[in-house]
Amino acid sequence: MEEKLAQLKAILAEVADLDYAASILHWDLQCLMPPGGAEGRSYQLATLAGLSHIKFTSDEVGKLLQELGPYAAQLDPDSDTARLIKVTARRYEKRTKVPPAMVGEFAQLTGAAHDIWVQARKANDFSKFQPYLEKIMDWRRRYADLFKPYDHVYDPLLDDFEPGLKSADVKAIFGALRTRQVALIKAIAARPQVDDSFLHLHFDEKKQWDFGVEVITKFGYDWTRGRQDKAPHPFTTNFGVNDVRITTRVVPNYLGSALFGTMHEAGHALYELGIAPELDRSPLEGGTSLAVHESQSRMWENLVGRSYEFWQHFYPRAQEMFPSQLGNVSLDTFYKGINCVKPSLIRVEADEATYNLHIMLRLELEMAVMEGSLAIKDLPEAWNAHMKDYLGLTPPNDADGVLQDVHWSSGLVGYFATYALGNLISAQLWERILADIPNLPDQIRGGEFGALLGWLREKIHRHGSKFEPQELVQQVTGSKINPDPYMRYLETKYGQIYGL
Amino acid sequence: MEEKLAQLKAILAEVADLDYAASILHWDLQCLMPPGGAEGRSYQLATLAGLSHIKFTSDEVGKLLQELGPYAAQLDPDSDTARLIKVTARRYEKRTKVPPAMVGEFAQLTGAAHDIWVQARKANDFSKFQPYLEKIMDWRRRYADLFKPYDHVYDPLLDDFEPGLKSADVKAIFGALRTRQVALIKAIAARPQVDDSFLHLHFDEKKQWDFGVEVITKFGYDWTRGRQDKAPHPFTTNFGVNDVRITTRVVPNYLGSALFGTMHEAGHALYELGIAPELDRSPLEGGTSLAVHESQSRMWENLVGRSYEFWQHFYPRAQEMFPSQLGNVSLDTFYKGINCVKPSLIRVEADEATYNLHIMLRLELEMAVMEGSLAIKDLPEAWNAHMKDYLGLTPPNDADGVLQDVHWSSGLVGYFATYALGNLISAQLWERILADIPNLPDQIRGGEFGALLGWLREKIHRHGSKFEPQELVQQVTGSKINPDPYMRYLETKYGQIYGL
Repeated sequence: MEEKLAQLKAILAEVADLDYAASILHWDLQCLMPPGGAEGRSYQLATLAGLSHIKFTSDEVGKLLQELGPYAAQLDPDSDTARLIKVTARRYEKRTKVPPAMVGEFAQLTGAAHDIWVQARKANDFSKFQPYLEKIMDWRRRYADLFKPYDHVYDPLLDDFEPGLKSADVKAIFGALRTRQVALIKAIAARPQVDDSFLHLHFDEKKQWDFGVEVITKFGYDWTRGRQDKAPHPFTTNFGVNDVRITTRVVPNYLGSALFGTMHEAGHALYELGIAPELDRSPLEGGTSLAVHESQSRMWENLVGRSYEFWQHFYPRAQEMFPSQLGNVSLDTFYKGINCVKPSLIRVEADEATYNLHIMLRLELEMAVMEGSLAIKDLPEAWNAHMKDYLGLTPPNDADGVLQDVHWSSGLVGYFATYALGNLISAQLWERILADIPNLPDQIRGGEFGALLGWLREKIHRHGSKFEPQELVQQVTGSKINPDPYMRYLETKYGQIYGL
Repeated sequence: MEEKLAQLKAILAEVADLDYAASILHWDLQCLMPPGGAEGRSYQLATLAGLSHIKFTSDEVGKLLQELGPYAAQLDPDSDTARLIKVTARRYEKRTKVPPAMVGEFAQLTGAAHDIWVQARKANDFSKFQPYLEKIMDWRRRYADLFKPYDHVYDPLLDDFEPGLKSADVKAIFGALRTRQVALIKAIAARPQVDDSFLHLHFDEKKQWDFGVEVITKFGYDWTRGRQDKAPHPFTTNFGVNDVRITTRVVPNYLGSALFGTMHEAGHALYELGIAPELDRSPLEGGTSLAVHESQSRMWENLVGRSYEFWQHFYPRAQEMFPSQLGNVSLDTFYKGINCVKPSLIRVEADEATYNLHIMLRLELEMAVMEGSLAIKDLPEAWNAHMKDYLGLTPPNDADGVLQDVHWSSGLVGYFATYALGNLISAQLWERILADIPNLPDQIRGGEFGALLGWLREKIHRHGSKFEPQELVQQVTGSKINPDPYMRYLETKYGQIYGL
């Protein structure tokens, strides 16, 4: 059995190498590639993805997994080996259930749909995109049906991003959240608004970059195992546990973009950098789910980076670097400014307090479409109605409404929820962290993040993908994903800022 | 047959994609990778190389080649298809003749030898490296023997870099060159030396970079299909015909390094950028041999970039960019300075006039070792004796002598000749070019390189690897590789500079 295990690991390591190589090519494409390289790059990526798929879904892997199943059952169920077999078997089953013809259809469909989405968005015309979105949602329904029986047609989609999470869980979580979150936004809107105009002055790009670097270096981002580059759409990527790169975007007329974006991506990167090296080149390498990943990025960006204690430490330095813009802005004014709540039409511009409402809207529409209770042609109207309900706003056009996100055109359905779940998990972990490290606020005031990072590494990072998200959250906090801590956090923080 | 050809092309395209992906990973490794990524990268590269090898040497490829052979024989022998089959069959035969065990042995041997070479060089102690070099040369002899019958044991090694070239050709070429080249160096040494001290002042790094960019942009380097980055050991790499990247090294206290290095790499890049797009993702993509490649880099670096006409155009701009260093240096003084001849111990620092002698020395020693007439233990002594003969110098230690180059430790034997052959071909092509474009010197004086690049594209670049080097040179110049034009070039140029 040891030999069969070694065989399986060797194949999985090669699959990982191919996937890492593809990630390097993607990173280069986003950050550095000259435009002429686009066509060749698409061939290279298709070849790597194809070989990885063939290798991972091979009969050989299936046979090894079958043979190793009983062996793994005798091991400690939380051991690396038992978990490796379990996670690999799970992914193998998901991947092999999709007929190659459907995979090809999807690639073709989303390739075309993306271009059409770009055009439709430019033209403010949902009807152009509608037939493509219908085909994508139809494909997604057929995809879900490959995994029957399910409790809910949305379950298999959600499961791709949040292993083990059910639609019923998500409905319950967001059901509990909706009323409180909407009420909070309304209460804030009724109060005098805060000023954040000083964030929108001109800030030297190099200084913005340098300030972000100073901050994440303090966080513990290891520059010998990563680097930062510019990208139009910032992201984090890794090529194994020892090469985890971040990207950022610097906007000359808005301090917040690079600053909080850099902390956000560093949060993702710290997760990947903290994964146990023995999980490298295996399916257990990498964060366990998008929501848990987002819990890390949002924690460093918001719970740390938008906290008063953080700026007690960093604000003098910020004033020193940007004297003409911030010299006359007090710490309190700055703190309120970076936490300004402003309902907006656009998800990616949303603040902490309104963000989850953008997600709920999308999640509810996706579920309704998948359930068959909402026709694609009625999406724009439903979108606008939800937007009015949740944020009190009406999109002036489809580009700023139903057409704003790229996800659906790429075939990503079931993805949005992970953003909001990440917020919830971040606050849930934070309550646990504060119980374990009671003087953490003092540490942050002193620019010390070592204990926090150490806690995260021990409890979350090192496990990689060994535990499913609900399992991990339960293990660390004593309960499954729960919206209460996040609401407590929002209500306390914004209650204080807005004097509710 | 059309279908079989399509099958073969599809496999070869996937092999090319894997090889391009590996090149991207190598490029990143050299230019950008954080040190932590080294171990993971070596796995990724090994996996890509392994899959590429398996795919290319598969029985399927062998069978398709066999079936397509008679079909190709009926086509125009210079057609893309006929050449594709021919070149692929040739490489397939070479690759499949090496038993996998020998491939593994080589990888292990050179991996270890490289580390030992680094240590031996540091310690100035050839004896440490000697046993490894013995094993490498032994491996190379066994490798050559796989291709028996041969005219000379060195032929199969040379053929890896210069398809079709024979040791007898090389001996004849260098035999004709040696006396004239040694005599020229002696004559130069007897004359008053030129001053190049102004090149060794401090030059702002960014300005050096920018000046290089200006020059190669004028050459026609297409920035939409390439980019330049810094690397400790500059190189050119390509990931298809539309993404060809160069690297450079900027030395603050020497203007020549970045300037001529940038032109050199741009010369390589222009070759790759000029290859016919229909050869992309096939074995015909890429320059046909190292020597022909080097003819392009050396042409732009030396025949263009170290010419008087070139600096008639660019020197005012150089003076404008570097007024404190060059403001009081006349064009004539500058021209002589950049063409200063100084016999030195180190190949990579050698000037145009002495470079080939460094190559001859290595070539003769390699051949003697392979023939069995020189023992590895006697290499240092033989090296020093040749150095004295050719350049009148005696290395003070092995680090500056027999241990100076990385090539042997990497198992590269048969490679060195290509550098000198590139010089010869560059001058041979140049005579042809001047016959075809008589006013080229005037064009260069005017900063115009379009006609030159057009000629190179038409005669050399677009063909990729379709023609073997001797075949290509014959086709373009009317004779095979011939040292006379290069000697004429050196004798005229240096005769004028040194008043011989």
